Amino acid sequence: MISDRLVEVGYEVRPIFGVERTVIGAVGGQEHQKVDTIDQLRAYDFVDDVMIITKPYKFVAKEYKKSKSVIDVRGLKIGGDEVVMMAGPCTVESEDQLMTSAKAVAEAGATVLRGGAYKPSTSPYSFHGMGLPALELLAEAGRRYNLRVVTEVMDPRKVEEVSEYSDILQIGARNMQNYDLLREVGQSRKAVMLKRGLSAKYEEWLLAAEYIASGGNESIMLCERGIRSFETYTRNVLDVTAVPVIHNLSHLPVVVDPSHGCGRRDLVATMSNASVAAGADALIIEVHPNPDHAIKDGAQSITFDQFREMMPPLRKIAEAIGRSVAAIPSAV
Amino acid sequence: MISDRLVEVGYEVRPIFGVERTVIGAVGGQEHQKVDTIDQLRAYDFVDDVMIITKPYKFVAKEYKKSKSVIDVRGLKIGGDEVVMMAGPCTVESEDQLMTSAKAVAEAGATVLRGGAYKPSTSPYSFHGMGLPALELLAEAGRRYNLRVVTEVMDPRKVEEVSEYSDILQIGARNMQNYDLLREVGQSRKAVMLKRGLSAKYEEWLLAAEYIASGGNESIMLCERGIRSFETYTRNVLDVTAVPVIHNLSHLPVVVDPSHGCGRRDLVATMSNASVAAGADALIIEVHPNPDHAIKDGAQSITFDQFREMMPPLRKIAEAIGRSVAAIPSAV
Amino acid sequence: MISDRLVEVGYEVRPIFGVERTVIGAVGGQEHQKVDTIDQLRAYDFVDDVMIITKPYKFVAKEYKKSKSVIDVRGLKIGGDEVVMMAGPCTVESEDQLMTSAKAVAEAGATVLRGGAYKPSTSPYSFHGMGLPALELLAEAGRRYNLRVVTEVMDPRKVEEVSEYSDILQIGARNMQNYDLLREVGQSRKAVMLKRGLSAKYEEWLLAAEYIASGGNESIMLCERGIRSFETYTRNVLDVTAVPVIHNLSHLPVVVDPSHGCGRRDLVATMSNASVAAGADALIIEVHPNPDHAIKDGAQSITFDQFREMMPPLRKIAEAIGRSVAAIPSAV
Amino acid sequence: MISDRLVEVGYEVRPIFGVERTVIGAVGGQEHQKVDTIDQLRAYDFVDDVMIITKPYKFVAKEYKKSKSVIDVRGLKIGGDEVVMMAGPCTVESEDQLMTSAKAVAEAGATVLRGGAYKPSTSPYSFHGMGLPALELLAEAGRRYNLRVVTEVMDPRKVEEVSEYSDILQIGARNMQNYDLLREVGQSRKAVMLKRGLSAKYEEWLLAAEYIASGGNESIMLCERGIRSFETYTRNVLDVTAVPVIHNLSHLPVVVDPSHGCGRRDLVATMSNASVAAGADALIIEVHPNPDHAIKDGAQSITFDQFREMMPPLRKIAEAIGRSVAAIPSAV
Repeated sequence: MISDRLVEVGYEVRPIFGVERTVIGAVGGQEHQKVDTIDQLRAYDFVDDVMIITKPYKFVAKEYKKSKSVIDVRGLKIGGDEVVMMAGPCTVESEDQLMTSAKAVAEAGATVLRGGAYKPSTSPYSFHGMGLPALELLAEAGRRYNLRVVTEVMDPRKVEEVSEYSDILQIGARNMQNYDLLREVGQSRKAVMLKRGLSAKYEEWLLAAEYIASGGNESIMLCERGIRSFETYTRNVLDVTAVPVIHNLSHLPVVVDPSHGCGRRDLVATMSNASVAAGADALIIEVHPNPDHAIKDGAQSITFDQFREMMPPLRKIAEAIGRSVAAIPSAV
Repeated sequence: MISDRLVEVGYEVRPIFGVERTVIGAVGGQEHQKVDTIDQLRAYDFVDDVMIITKPYKFVAKEYKKSKSVIDVRGLKIGGDEVVMMAGPCTVESEDQLMTSAKAVAEAGATVLRGGAYKPSTSPYSFHGMGLPALELLAEAGRRYNLRVVTEVMDPRKVEEVSEYSDILQIGARNMQNYDLLREVGQSRKAVMLKRGLSAKYEEWLLAAEYIASGGNESIMLCERGIRSFETYTRNVLDVTAVPVIHNLSHLPVVVDPSHGCGRRDLVATMSNASVAAGADALIIEVHPNPDHAIKDGAQSITFDQFREMMPPLRKIAEAIGRSVAAIPSAV
Repeated sequence: MISDRLVEVGYEVRPIFGVERTVIGAVGGQEHQKVDTIDQLRAYDFVDDVMIITKPYKFVAKEYKKSKSVIDVRGLKIGGDEVVMMAGPCTVESEDQLMTSAKAVAEAGATVLRGGAYKPSTSPYSFHGMGLPALELLAEAGRRYNLRVVTEVMDPRKVEEVSEYSDILQIGARNMQNYDLLREVGQSRKAVMLKRGLSAKYEEWLLAAEYIASGGNESIMLCERGIRSFETYTRNVLDVTAVPVIHNLSHLPVVVDPSHGCGRRDLVATMSNASVAAGADALIIEVHPNPDHAIKDGAQSITFDQFREMMPPLRKIAEAIGRSVAAIPSAV
Repeated sequence: MISDRLVEVGYEVRPIFGVERTVIGAVGGQEHQKVDTIDQLRAYDFVDDVMIITKPYKFVAKEYKKSKSVIDVRGLKIGGDEVVMMAGPCTVESEDQLMTSAKAVAEAGATVLRGGAYKPSTSPYSFHGMGLPALELLAEAGRRYNLRVVTEVMDPRKVEEVSEYSDILQIGARNMQNYDLLREVGQSRKAVMLKRGLSAKYEEWLLAAEYIASGGNESIMLCERGIRSFETYTRNVLDVTAVPVIHNLSHLPVVVDPSHGCGRRDLVATMSNASVAAGADALIIEVHPNPDHAIKDGAQSITFDQFREMMPPLRKIAEAIGRSVAAIPSAV
């Protein structure tokens, strides 16, 4: 009915149906009719709000919500005053590897456990993750050490399965513009961590987040993980500037992944410091009991000792800008 | 059983189950056992072949198949002596728009009709294609003007539907590393056109193709469509060099898309000439009855007249290197 | 005096003094005075012309000169109907190496001899060229085989010396924005070949050419030699699209250097074909009597045989677009 | 004589003559003769040292000098425990503009005054700096407010003139591979700040520094100022990771220029924090009395107030990693 009215006065209508809301995008229209039409639409009691969009993205824009979004992950706040540490192995390899990792990172100050169950791999002949058993181990490790869990989902058909075990759904860099997957997690009630594509512009990244938000899921954090460049010494170029830029353009929290961003163990601690100084709301770090024997990403994984040693300077940097490192919430 | 034997002698085993074959990847193993093991495996009568992989990709490598692959699309050969012209609108907008386009491009020398039914869009508020009705129109236009049809599939759950109507399944640049989608089309018997990702290295592109081939579908053509760079005058940088490079590394045919590669109508004809001179096996061109009113990609779409006018010089270039432009096969 | 008048009516004045003309740039000014002022200025008999600049570059813009510039290098026309072949070794190594190269490339169809006398090298410990003796050898080889000579000048203090021996002054990619050097060759009467910087945008490249032109030297050709990207298989990405783009924006001839552009011998012939099909006015190719023993750039240098073999298809491509390969002018 | 001996035993010899030392590079040679030859060479009493180079660069490598270099600029230490603040306008515009800027930045904590006298400009029609009068003003401002002075030199013929007035010679990004200029400042006794080229790899940057060092001038600091990428929101991508990478590979101090790196005023303070957290030895910031009326780079220049306000958090970050911000040395 609203759609009919909009078409009548000259708009092109593009509805987006979500679980919690339906967005009716209206493009075009006669300039002189805009004000009248907006007033009429606001009058309907099932209409929440009518907004004039000037940026290409809307729900994720600063204009839509002035204050920073704080995402509540079972009591843990991401995007608030505290900096959240996410850590764990690239890939879940075994119960022993995961449990020792979870224990070590929890003791050192991490509050979120990372670990791959479904892994994207450039080669079809590489290891692609243990799948469901890894999800079960992650959930178990989370319970045992009171950690929240973040793990990647690649296939829209697996969103439900991964949601059962994980607190945060990670969308990987390769899938930043996998729109059917974005729409699927947009229908979910789980928090989403959206990694930046290898050569995604800020606007494209925010538009990918908008796909999720327009479906009704606004619990989104954006994760900078390095962009592709001509330099070959590092795996990628960690774009630390993305942190203040996204904070200028959007209300969403920003996570930084220095492990993938640099691809070299010896740079992780220093670039973690730089990221926190730039205002990162969380860090996600690859930690492995024995990096040189890791199935994947050993070169960029740090040891338990290295993780422990990087925390005190990091805490001081956080304090220098008026923040602190988040501790595990006592009750959920 | 083979897997057991391989594990026993120290390999790590990674099977890939396909419709037409099962690939058993074996990584590692003791050097001195390699020759013996290979001989033993060859002895099994259900073993087709045992290959030692030195490159990260295998079925798509020149080493695997010396001569160029020729893909037969209902009688139309792609990868042979003839250069194939694919043309049509970016997006199917209406029956009239598609039918007039199909007629015009067929008359001018195209043998494959392009047209988007499911369209990836950077913004969730843009047009995403007509979906199924567009597929039906494409199939109808194909029948009416004896054209083969190529259209994009984005969602692994839609591969079957799109396969019903289209001769070639296009994987878009954004989905080059959407591995679940690649595996799904790897199980299909339809030809696949795999576009190069925005900043994909040659090896990553070939490994994406390997995902498809390792599932048993070797009817793959690779499509160069421009890479991301610092230049802003053109939409992308069309990497014409990709044509001879891929021909050096792989037996697969190479398609060039100068429309997306340049993003500017005024460059399409010249860069088509350059691509054919570089050895492109096919071109895919956006043609629209009225580009300035196109829903998508108007700036890079050429008119019917421009398409007609670009064909004679293109034919001469093809002849200069001993090729010709493919005509529509008389019977299928 | 003119400057005084311009300042009086509110312009900021930036004079550029050249050998053949003085350009007085005037920025700003009151809109309503523009027409009047222009008329007044035109009235002065020492004023050649008054132009309103809308693009950031002027003398090199298409707007300034509709038809393509044809540069006359001692009778050899660059930028006309004929495609000019420049060839020779990366670096002059010895009299024998240069003379055999000059003879071979002249016989195969080259009309310009290339060869480095002063060589830029990423490392201070690499060979930097023979200097003056190499210049003398180049001039001698030019006389002996009736070839024009192109060689690089790096230091503004050497422009005069290099001009004595060379027909075309090459500005290398690393020096595209070495403004004191550009100003120096802008004062010269020799033709200049300005290579594109490693990551120069088209506009920056044209503005670098404008530095030369604004000094009074309009005999400029622009040389595309590959841009820097993430790909590591080739040395650079040869931006073939630069040819039609520059032809759209400027009246200057465009040279393509597939040797540096690709950095691989096996791609030179094919990419030469593509460049000519794209409308290149000249090619510059590294040819060496024994590439595997070349002091510099052996990987991208082709043999005499390879140069001879690439010419016939190249001639056919040129004919396909209505051009031919330039022959050595009989008399100068 | 040494050269003769080296040639005799099969080396190719490349001498580099400097003011304070002569480097004799020897490439090649028979493996079995190496040890003997080295011993013989060490025996000459005019031979300082014989080194085996494994990296392409040598005097600037960590291998050559384990501890960090501390450059003494009239008593001010760069590369030590203290972080040095360099600030001032992009370009010297007038006595008043420079003196008020010098006073403001000195009061806020800067110890080095920046200001352009000779300015590189993409366009020949832009302002290119006041030249000599600007140098005189810089030197006067330095005296008046006890600041060291850094300014750019572009032309090898101007190195002597600029050295008379400036404490630090800046080599701009466009001239990073202007080898004749590098050789000229290599002969100077002034400290040099070498900016990273727009798309220079780390190794190329260090090799450019090696040009200077091999001439005998080891007072070199490297300045990260952003690299070129596909992103258009910021002017460049500030590569903060360059700081720890260069500290890993070299003993030279690293300066960061967030003004050019980001090209946006609103990012300067935050990215200064990140740079110091990453270990930067100095920052160079564009500050202008009235940025919106600056002749050049107004968009990235901050006001006096903004500079004052960014200092307290910066000091805290420095303290968090055990450093402090350098104060002006009381006596010189």
